[in-house]
Amino acid sequence: MSALDDFRQLAQDITDLSGAAGVLEWDQQTYMPRGGAITRGQQLATLERTVHNLRTGPAFEAALGAAERETPTDAVDSALLEVSRRDFERQRKLPSDFVQAFSEARTASSNAWEQARADNDFKGFEPHLVKMFDFAARSADLYGYKDHPYDALLYDYEPGVSTAEVRAAFTELRAFTAPLVRRIAERVQAGGELADPAILERAYPIEGQRRFGLKVAAAFGFDLNRGRQDLAVHPFETNFSRDDVRITTRFQEHYLNDAMFSTFHEAGHGIYEQNTGLKLARTPLARGASSMVHESQSRTWENLVGRSRPFWRHWLPELKAEFPEALADVDAETIYRLVNRVQPSFIRVDADEVTYNLHIMLRFELELAVLEGGLKVSELPEAWNAKMQDFLGVTPPTDRLGVLQDVHWSAGLVGYFPTYTLGNILSVQLFEAARAATPGLDAALAAGNYAPLREWLSGHVHRFGRMLLPLDLVRQATGSGLNAEPYTRYLNDKYSQLYGL
Amino acid sequence: MSALDDFRQLAQDITDLSGAAGVLEWDQQTYMPRGGAITRGQQLATLERTVHNLRTGPAFEAALGAAERETPTDAVDSALLEVSRRDFERQRKLPSDFVQAFSEARTASSNAWEQARADNDFKGFEPHLVKMFDFAARSADLYGYKDHPYDALLYDYEPGVSTAEVRAAFTELRAFTAPLVRRIAERVQAGGELADPAILERAYPIEGQRRFGLKVAAAFGFDLNRGRQDLAVHPFETNFSRDDVRITTRFQEHYLNDAMFSTFHEAGHGIYEQNTGLKLARTPLARGASSMVHESQSRTWENLVGRSRPFWRHWLPELKAEFPEALADVDAETIYRLVNRVQPSFIRVDADEVTYNLHIMLRFELELAVLEGGLKVSELPEAWNAKMQDFLGVTPPTDRLGVLQDVHWSAGLVGYFPTYTLGNILSVQLFEAARAATPGLDAALAAGNYAPLREWLSGHVHRFGRMLLPLDLVRQATGSGLNAEPYTRYLNDKYSQLYGL
Repeated sequence: MSALDDFRQLAQDITDLSGAAGVLEWDQQTYMPRGGAITRGQQLATLERTVHNLRTGPAFEAALGAAERETPTDAVDSALLEVSRRDFERQRKLPSDFVQAFSEARTASSNAWEQARADNDFKGFEPHLVKMFDFAARSADLYGYKDHPYDALLYDYEPGVSTAEVRAAFTELRAFTAPLVRRIAERVQAGGELADPAILERAYPIEGQRRFGLKVAAAFGFDLNRGRQDLAVHPFETNFSRDDVRITTRFQEHYLNDAMFSTFHEAGHGIYEQNTGLKLARTPLARGASSMVHESQSRTWENLVGRSRPFWRHWLPELKAEFPEALADVDAETIYRLVNRVQPSFIRVDADEVTYNLHIMLRFELELAVLEGGLKVSELPEAWNAKMQDFLGVTPPTDRLGVLQDVHWSAGLVGYFPTYTLGNILSVQLFEAARAATPGLDAALAAGNYAPLREWLSGHVHRFGRMLLPLDLVRQATGSGLNAEPYTRYLNDKYSQLYGL
Repeated sequence: MSALDDFRQLAQDITDLSGAAGVLEWDQQTYMPRGGAITRGQQLATLERTVHNLRTGPAFEAALGAAERETPTDAVDSALLEVSRRDFERQRKLPSDFVQAFSEARTASSNAWEQARADNDFKGFEPHLVKMFDFAARSADLYGYKDHPYDALLYDYEPGVSTAEVRAAFTELRAFTAPLVRRIAERVQAGGELADPAILERAYPIEGQRRFGLKVAAAFGFDLNRGRQDLAVHPFETNFSRDDVRITTRFQEHYLNDAMFSTFHEAGHGIYEQNTGLKLARTPLARGASSMVHESQSRTWENLVGRSRPFWRHWLPELKAEFPEALADVDAETIYRLVNRVQPSFIRVDADEVTYNLHIMLRFELELAVLEGGLKVSELPEAWNAKMQDFLGVTPPTDRLGVLQDVHWSAGLVGYFPTYTLGNILSVQLFEAARAATPGLDAALAAGNYAPLREWLSGHVHRFGRMLLPLDLVRQATGSGLNAEPYTRYLNDKYSQLYGL
């Protein structure tokens, strides 16, 4: 056995045990009986500590060093060593008592947040949120940074993307979005509502929703032999290997959009994971490149495909077969308009394509303000509401519909939010590159043939896993860096046409 | 921290990681997509190797030795050290490359068995079965034994019970069972069928079966806040802690018995695990004492309660509420007779109480013959069929209904089968002890009040977990050793009355 073989074996063990932890987390969100919560927390903590020790211990460092001295030439092997070195250097910067304290505080914070959200009680959550921002700030100091502490946090989700770049992209996008939202609002006030939204709130029996969602997901390319869908309170995608990818959703009998678009969205994440390169299996490379790249894939299938006119021309007959009564009077143009209705609202995850990014910018700005010291955690509810009024023209009546709505901060995820909008931006860049490289792509999509798009994405994004840094991947796939222009053009064309602007 | 605290911490880690492996196995049998099989096998192998290393490594030995030198006086602590020492001495006898090779061969064997059973192709499974018996024989050699290699295998499931004891109990039971089966067969031939079996094959919509089964399981005491039921190809019980116990079943719309009695049975296993002592949590003591003791609990609820006349007098109205049409013409005495119909058949898990044990004796004798070298694996199908004719008077038309029917051998479980019949024997011993100690027990059972029985069992069996060796537990709970007499008396009384013998 070479040193490289030894290191690969260690990487396999770590990947296998991380996958095992993934199964426990999935079960926790889907099937675990309520009474099992405490012991499950203990099992996960022990498993995660085992993985952490393997990843950061002296045996790992020695094995990695020895493998590096063999300077492999195979692309996968050298990426394995590069990514492992990067992860190792980063993880070792956090002392293990800090990691342990953060982990315990996070558990307490998550529980407090759930309770606070149920009770609409920000004050009850505030001390935990103070701690979460404090841990974030201390993490940034421990990791180190040149320009801004936020750079150090963002690195966890988007290595190589700077706060300044995010700020620039967001400034451009906001300058475009604000007038678009205003023009749409004026049009709606003048009686230009796209269609009757009550149509989506008719009775859609859940079994039919489930069947239709999975049929579309399978048509997109989500392989149900290597994946499945279950119920959970919040939709998510997780995976234990490229051959075992789980997505979840939740069903509302009287709201068609919720399960349908979350299924398309999570299937998009799932298709990415199912198509990472075979040779990357059981290594840390067998994962999406970053949060932004992941989100670009989910948004491709949810929005660029699932909220397009050709999609509805193709699929409405199938949906009608499931719900002949509820959809008797609905044509493809009507449902296309309904699923693209723009309306400022309180809840990020329910937002339309246009206003969604304003929710993200708001969170990004608040995170920056807290980290920079210009805003106290206690002032967050007020600042949140003021920005909602400023960005979207609405003020949440309760913190439950405002600052308490998202799980992220309660789990110590500061720096994550921007990746959602970066993913939206990237989705259109990739889609345009796919279109330019694939004659007949639009015709295929119109015919419900998703193989050409999926294959281009697999060939240019999925198969590389974490081999490339996200911006290198973007450059290789699209020929340019991150660029908001295609996305604003897409939004402008689509919504000008829809609203007759 | 004392050395005992250190050891307890290590035992917790091991228990947590074993629980994690349990979640992966449960998922494998219930929800895992088919394509995930290979990576799941890898994840389980890595997790099991991690646990095995923790359990058998020098750090464990040192921690255990140090804790032993503190000679704790608390009963749980000293049982923890005693059981840990016993497990350690046993496990270290298997080298870790042997464990790894067995584990991999087992995965391949299980897959081959599934295919072979589907195809009725013993030859395709034979090489794997040869390996499984070979691994069993080598395990026995590695463990060591005085009288018979089977003793070494049996120890995994029934520590302290010898092959000679099993043989003696089985000889007695067989001498009793053979004439009983013959007398019943003569009675049936003379026109004494108990009732029309087609009643159980009417339409019983699955949702109603599920609801009724869980209602009864909950009434028995299976806590659905700390447990749940899912679908699987084969019914089983597993648990990841006393607070997270999973049972499975399968439903046949046109056969009421399958799901119903497997639910009662698995709930019995589950109630045992849910009631191990709180102080045993996160230690190797927090499990049933042995397979036989476990089986005594499942059989108590399935047979002694669930197949009793008072049970049906109490529950038939509830069952009729679920299936008013199918059961319109059925009274309590009829269903009592139907669920106790004796009929020699091919499949062990479908067998009635009387013939069931003959299936077990057959397997026990074949296992002994193969291990002793008197029978080749290639000769098993023929030997199986010959014994079926000898014991039960029927010959399976296919290996699918014969030697290929059970999962056990394919998973390397040689030595397990006898515990089923030992469990039947023990169930009646315990039931008689409970009855003797609990005035009004029969009246409570007739009224559907299962708390007195369950509490006696929890107090005399469940709460001890693995603190006592099985035969010590039996002696403490019943005042005597393993004794087939109460069981044969039970069978004789019940079936003489039913068949008017």
